[in-house]
Amino acid sequence: MTPTITAFEQSPDRGQGLARDMTARWAFEEVGQRYDVRLVSFSALKNDAHRALQPFGQIPTYEEGDLVLFESGAIVLHIAERHAGLLPDDANARARAITWMFAALSTVEPVIVQRETSFYLERDKAWHEERLLIVEDRIRSRLVELSVRLGDSEWLDGTFSAGDLMMVQVLRRLGSSNILGEYPNLSAYVARGEARQAFKRAFADQLAIFTGSATDRSH
Amino acid sequence: MTPTITAFEQSPDRGQGLARDMTARWAFEEVGQRYDVRLVSFSALKNDAHRALQPFGQIPTYEEGDLVLFESGAIVLHIAERHAGLLPDDANARARAITWMFAALSTVEPVIVQRETSFYLERDKAWHEERLLIVEDRIRSRLVELSVRLGDSEWLDGTFSAGDLMMVQVLRRLGSSNILGEYPNLSAYVARGEARQAFKRAFADQLAIFTGSATDRSH
Repeated sequence: MTPTITAFEQSPDRGQGLARDMTARWAFEEVGQRYDVRLVSFSALKNDAHRALQPFGQIPTYEEGDLVLFESGAIVLHIAERHAGLLPDDANARARAITWMFAALSTVEPVIVQRETSFYLERDKAWHEERLLIVEDRIRSRLVELSVRLGDSEWLDGTFSAGDLMMVQVLRRLGSSNILGEYPNLSAYVARGEARQAFKRAFADQLAIFTGSATDRSH
Repeated sequence: MTPTITAFEQSPDRGQGLARDMTARWAFEEVGQRYDVRLVSFSALKNDAHRALQPFGQIPTYEEGDLVLFESGAIVLHIAERHAGLLPDDANARARAITWMFAALSTVEPVIVQRETSFYLERDKAWHEERLLIVEDRIRSRLVELSVRLGDSEWLDGTFSAGDLMMVQVLRRLGSSNILGEYPNLSAYVARGEARQAFKRAFADQLAIFTGSATDRSH
């Protein structure tokens, strides 16, 4: 059965692939699983029908028969557990790859999202710039630690995994700032992720919705 | 082999069980797995030895033979996958329980932690109170959504799971505010979690470190 995910009908980032459907799309492409996409308008996110799938009114959701999931982390893990390509076979290496998924979402992403929300919610405040410096210092603290751990390695722990997929997507959220460029090994790490064929296919598909060139929702 | 987790040598919350070793302890207790605890001083968190285990200088870590994990979410999932009691047998219900783990850590916790960090980092700012209102509004947005989804149910999806364990721990971080009390079904949900025997054992063990009454690190 082909799973269906939801994505925004109108790309809030103009097709930069920062909405969280991109994470699920990339995972599907890495493992070679076909999927369908159902587009949801911003107003429909708050409808009861969407809330029944996603209590927080977000995208993506994942539907496959009777199963309904949400949270991009849970969706990627679900895909990774059912198909080869995103988690190592060795039990310990698998557990470490999952650790990096949680590190990306729970330790690195929150400070990066704070920077984004400060623009949405606080840009008109007299203290916006002052607070932005505090937030960016916290981002740098995390990135220094991540940069030290990554060192000269290609990926975070051996071969490319769901942990790298998630971490690269989280770091890509810094794209509009210059912060990532202060850490050359992290910039190169993100570039390696973006150079993967699976990433490119997923990126092109989500961009096609923004440009209006998407003609076939089946992948 | 008995796994070893790390915890703070000096409880930053005076034994309220909000440090993240509590989450791992509670999971161990739910499944009946023995574990050891190694205490780490604040200064040692930044040491190379600890960074080798935890690149971001946090607790808890999880060591079992050659395996080293970090991130409380990954540790709980690892425990839950290896022992009965925290994930349903049914594959779909299991995937949904894992979804709630990610929802707790990735969607609910970040706004709650923002409130805490605003006290650490911004309390001396003239705009602290103004920003606190913005943060608390965002917390309420998440809690309304969670409250609607929970409704009159005992747990988030059927029987108690790792998803509930994680969500209760995240909501407990609001303990020092009055916000949780605005959502009676969520307050009752947290109270149900705290009433579990496994929670009580874990709580007593972490409290014993603060009160100095811990005499045996083996559980």
